[in-house]
Amino acid sequence: MRVQGRDYRTVWMEASVVRMIHQPYLPHRFEITDLPTHRHTADAIRTMIVRGAGAIGATAGFATAQAALEAPDDGFHAWLAGAVDTIERTRPTAQNLFYATRRVLGAIEAQGDDLAAARNAAVAEAVAIADDDAACCEAIGRHGAALLGDRTRVSTHCNAGWLAFVDWGSALSPIYVAQRQGKRPFVWVDETRPRSQGARLTAWELGQEGVDHAVIADNATGHYLQRGEIDMVIVGSDRIAANGDVANKIGTYSSAVVARAHGVPFYVAAPTTTIDPACPTGLDIPIEEREADEVRWTWGWSDDGSFVRVRTTPQTSNARNPAFDMTPAELVAGIITEKGVVPATPAGMASVWRQSEVC
Amino acid sequence: MRVQGRDYRTVWMEASVVRMIHQPYLPHRFEITDLPTHRHTADAIRTMIVRGAGAIGATAGFATAQAALEAPDDGFHAWLAGAVDTIERTRPTAQNLFYATRRVLGAIEAQGDDLAAARNAAVAEAVAIADDDAACCEAIGRHGAALLGDRTRVSTHCNAGWLAFVDWGSALSPIYVAQRQGKRPFVWVDETRPRSQGARLTAWELGQEGVDHAVIADNATGHYLQRGEIDMVIVGSDRIAANGDVANKIGTYSSAVVARAHGVPFYVAAPTTTIDPACPTGLDIPIEEREADEVRWTWGWSDDGSFVRVRTTPQTSNARNPAFDMTPAELVAGIITEKGVVPATPAGMASVWRQSEVC
Repeated sequence: MRVQGRDYRTVWMEASVVRMIHQPYLPHRFEITDLPTHRHTADAIRTMIVRGAGAIGATAGFATAQAALEAPDDGFHAWLAGAVDTIERTRPTAQNLFYATRRVLGAIEAQGDDLAAARNAAVAEAVAIADDDAACCEAIGRHGAALLGDRTRVSTHCNAGWLAFVDWGSALSPIYVAQRQGKRPFVWVDETRPRSQGARLTAWELGQEGVDHAVIADNATGHYLQRGEIDMVIVGSDRIAANGDVANKIGTYSSAVVARAHGVPFYVAAPTTTIDPACPTGLDIPIEEREADEVRWTWGWSDDGSFVRVRTTPQTSNARNPAFDMTPAELVAGIITEKGVVPATPAGMASVWRQSEVC
Repeated sequence: MRVQGRDYRTVWMEASVVRMIHQPYLPHRFEITDLPTHRHTADAIRTMIVRGAGAIGATAGFATAQAALEAPDDGFHAWLAGAVDTIERTRPTAQNLFYATRRVLGAIEAQGDDLAAARNAAVAEAVAIADDDAACCEAIGRHGAALLGDRTRVSTHCNAGWLAFVDWGSALSPIYVAQRQGKRPFVWVDETRPRSQGARLTAWELGQEGVDHAVIADNATGHYLQRGEIDMVIVGSDRIAANGDVANKIGTYSSAVVARAHGVPFYVAAPTTTIDPACPTGLDIPIEEREADEVRWTWGWSDDGSFVRVRTTPQTSNARNPAFDMTPAELVAGIITEKGVVPATPAGMASVWRQSEVC
């Protein structure tokens, strides 16, 4: 996608160096970080310089390829196994991370004892993982854009944009495709407390792509739904249960309930790899509770140009910080996947998931 | 209510000095501001050192009494009229402000040419206005507390606590009364973006009164409703239409819709003076849109102890900032007034409003 008029991906590889957009600085500073070794790249995952399922996966693939380039000929495989262990410990709940490291390791192993071929195959496989992610998201955009008419006003929550993937994104991809089709969508951007991913990342992405938008407090979505100023809601997802229940950033559920009250369709856009057949329903999806200080403090850019945090709550007040919530399938108008828009039902999920070994 | 174990009101008068809690510093610093003349007091209203309908009314009454004390014997009434004009220009949309200045002026005029008696009557009337406000809010608390059982878990939005009135508050008054009855309520405090009145003021009030509570992002209320961890919602109101529709801080409407989806009763607590018979329905209540920068920047206490703002959005992103929303009467389980809990219906509103010349 475009940044300052140029095309970027969130992460890519040049020779043995992994390069990525430094996401914590956004939207205040746009900077590319160079990561010369797999240890630097693993650190970037751990410290959330890069975040989002697709982007983490691609980065882990590149880190594994770096490790293959760095590994000594003598004891290559043992050294590599240690490096992969380092990579996999960075964000142990990110499923895509394991998928990527395993896929690159598989490509390496297929070359047997030819280490030069193994190193080439590792880099090629990591690039393919990133390319696959971008192609998958672009397909989500094509399918989703068909749902948008001229000047459709879309509400979204959190950041399910290209910064969370390699390119295009999930919930924002239909908007980018529609924009390039000349449909001029408008986006209501929930700021997405407590970490402000909407205000920071989604608003920045949309601005760079020239998409008209307005940031609102999360609690204002209901007002604009009531006023008839929202035509459609599209959000991403962290995990989709086998029955179509959807886990996504905290606040998604309220949007879905109020959208239903006003007959506004609520869509979820996600790669089919987000479907977890091991979770029969949304009640089986564990909801991570993060530290209370994320609610008690807000990070941002101060008037003097420094990145600081400010506390809004009393020092002695407790806070609760559920990171996700669960939206039942019956509130979901459809799941926009790379294979098409499918109903949020067991049959709908099974129809796309069965074929989804790779995306 | 209690602060650091002592009883306070938001505003009171000692001799000719008006004293008030400096609300913008809360919860980071508790400080009493002394206002020696009606001009200082008017400035405190204008700059929102004090805010909330009841508190503004009482402060305006005290300021008018101060003006009566300051006015020269020669040209007393003309001087006083000028001073009242200054007071009334501070927050021209605050209806309670005009009610208070007119009530104090009426007490002065009743004394005819006896200026000493007029000055005494002005102070007595201002004190009576504040006492009336406190008594009214305490009555709301008594009626509302009857709705709470042991350990009832209440969700509230914004700050309809004693800081918005003279004492007790509206939405929080039932909680304070229940707490003193030994019912040990628990309060889910919406942080209330963009101005964080919940995180700042409601959490501080509850902590000082020893009420157990947790601050949550506004978007998390739906999650806890879904989980069955909220038994009741109580919010305040800025204006109630003749049919029972309720205008309140942005975000109230979404809470009401999701509460209904889970069968959780949604109550509005407000003095009967909040009912506006000139507004037939909520659609007739104008919704103020405030400046976008309130959404783009967040104020708080920094790590180095200064009160600063941080920007979360891109510099070029637009934001929208509706200050209020409208909750239709059919979502309201009842209006908790100083005269009892009444249904949010035209008949219910008329039954209490007709008698509500003074509160």
